[in-house]
Amino acid sequence: MNGGGVELLNAGNATALFHSVDAFLFDCDGVIWKGDKLIDGVYDTLTFLRSQKLVFVTNNSSKSRRQFASKFLSLGISVSQDEIFSSSFAAAMYLKSIEFSPDKKVYVVGGEGILEELDLAGFTALGGPEDGKKMIELKENPFLEHDKTVGAVVIGLDQYINFYKLHYATLCIRENPGCLFIATNRDAVGNMTDLQEWPGAGCMVAALCGSTEKEPIVVGKPSAFMMDFLLKKFHVDTSRMCMVGDRLDTDILFGQSAGCKTLLVLSGVTTLPTLQDSANNILPDYYTDKVSDLLQLLRP
Amino acid sequence: MNGGGVELLNAGNATALFHSVDAFLFDCDGVIWKGDKLIDGVYDTLTFLRSQKLVFVTNNSSKSRRQFASKFLSLGISVSQDEIFSSSFAAAMYLKSIEFSPDKKVYVVGGEGILEELDLAGFTALGGPEDGKKMIELKENPFLEHDKTVGAVVIGLDQYINFYKLHYATLCIRENPGCLFIATNRDAVGNMTDLQEWPGAGCMVAALCGSTEKEPIVVGKPSAFMMDFLLKKFHVDTSRMCMVGDRLDTDILFGQSAGCKTLLVLSGVTTLPTLQDSANNILPDYYTDKVSDLLQLLRP
Repeated sequence: MNGGGVELLNAGNATALFHSVDAFLFDCDGVIWKGDKLIDGVYDTLTFLRSQKLVFVTNNSSKSRRQFASKFLSLGISVSQDEIFSSSFAAAMYLKSIEFSPDKKVYVVGGEGILEELDLAGFTALGGPEDGKKMIELKENPFLEHDKTVGAVVIGLDQYINFYKLHYATLCIRENPGCLFIATNRDAVGNMTDLQEWPGAGCMVAALCGSTEKEPIVVGKPSAFMMDFLLKKFHVDTSRMCMVGDRLDTDILFGQSAGCKTLLVLSGVTTLPTLQDSANNILPDYYTDKVSDLLQLLRP
Repeated sequence: MNGGGVELLNAGNATALFHSVDAFLFDCDGVIWKGDKLIDGVYDTLTFLRSQKLVFVTNNSSKSRRQFASKFLSLGISVSQDEIFSSSFAAAMYLKSIEFSPDKKVYVVGGEGILEELDLAGFTALGGPEDGKKMIELKENPFLEHDKTVGAVVIGLDQYINFYKLHYATLCIRENPGCLFIATNRDAVGNMTDLQEWPGAGCMVAALCGSTEKEPIVVGKPSAFMMDFLLKKFHVDTSRMCMVGDRLDTDILFGQSAGCKTLLVLSGVTTLPTLQDSANNILPDYYTDKVSDLLQLLRP
């Protein structure tokens, strides 16, 4: 580890942390759940922490805020949509923030969640899951017409990624003047299921960087966009927030850049050797195995 | 254009070029053909140039050398397999050159051509086109077992790219100790059909860079590997070769790095504005519209 600063969470610093913040920001995949399974002790921990503001900030773009609230409920946890900041929502809010013309269309490479958030924000979206079935046979010498009114491509995690979508998105970005290239996030891998890590949005986004030779605007963590937006809703000083996440280059960097306290949990993609690797220069204030350690330490 | 040096091909410099070289190296897509159509005048030009050594150096990995020779024949041009250097062949020769153990397997993301070249070189390959039909449903909480004896992943252009392949290749590279990550090439786009440019291998390779956070060994142009290999077969001084291609960052860079003369043709992905853009610093010796201009100028 590069010098000191990172403390293993213990009864003393956990108590100090708890009293020094007014809001806990939680990542979800690898922190709250893995796939459709809650991580041990999460329910009791969130119940205990409810005296403070709780916010869920996830780079997972597969669901809309409404769909995330349903998922929480199906796992027995009641969370309001307003407490959820997903990168699908961030993509729609980014377009709002730049006054993207509702006359233009948005081509989506990714899940239903992005389509729903764009629709709720008043934008017309094309693509998404339904293009997962479209195939192209190059030997039949096809010519794909693309919609010249597409003014933005939004790309996120897409388990139905295919050549059709990559070609369509590439055409829009390369050929439609001024077409925006927006990435929900660039996570390399993620705990999209309980048993294994899977390629994340960073995989699909990189593919499009490869074909367009352009770099995207990233709206999810660690970009500041979600934090700026979140601060307009919650009037809490960032120094009185604690960001809890399982990834150094998204969660912890996001929290640190904003001036939050940061807690890394080892229940997701980051291992202790990765944290302690001399090549790693993203250091959280605290680290612990899992979210429920907070509860154990605060209420022994 | 950054300074001088680039000359439009004319009768004078074409004649000088012709007499100063002993071999012409041709790229194929966008130079010889687009999709399954010969570019105008190519047949007569190659027939005329047959007094010199002709070599075809293509980053297209979809076919093996045998399959490329068949394609040439189907277009009415007789080319021997020994005159063809494809990136599919280069991938197999690279593994040979490093004495990759035949006891290990190779996972392929790409076309039939790579599988055939690996097989001819005595390696056992997995994946390829047949994995294009494999689907994963994350909501079913799958766990994908991967072969721990895979010691190399070879990735090229794959029109059947999907989440299964990206996940499998990512698992091999991340979890099999020492597993090599080999890219046939990184072309952003290419003329895989007559009517349109399509995302190239650079798209698929970048996807895997995104999920593995690693960089590949590239065996195709502009890497020197193909040239080194080619020079073992053809005993021609590189200063007496002319590389003819349609891409600056692969063909022209490849030729220049080796000390060849270079001729850019505008019949493929590079446009005159791109060549002349002040941001471009890859400058061929000569440029012209298409290969057959050589014939026109040499035999007016």
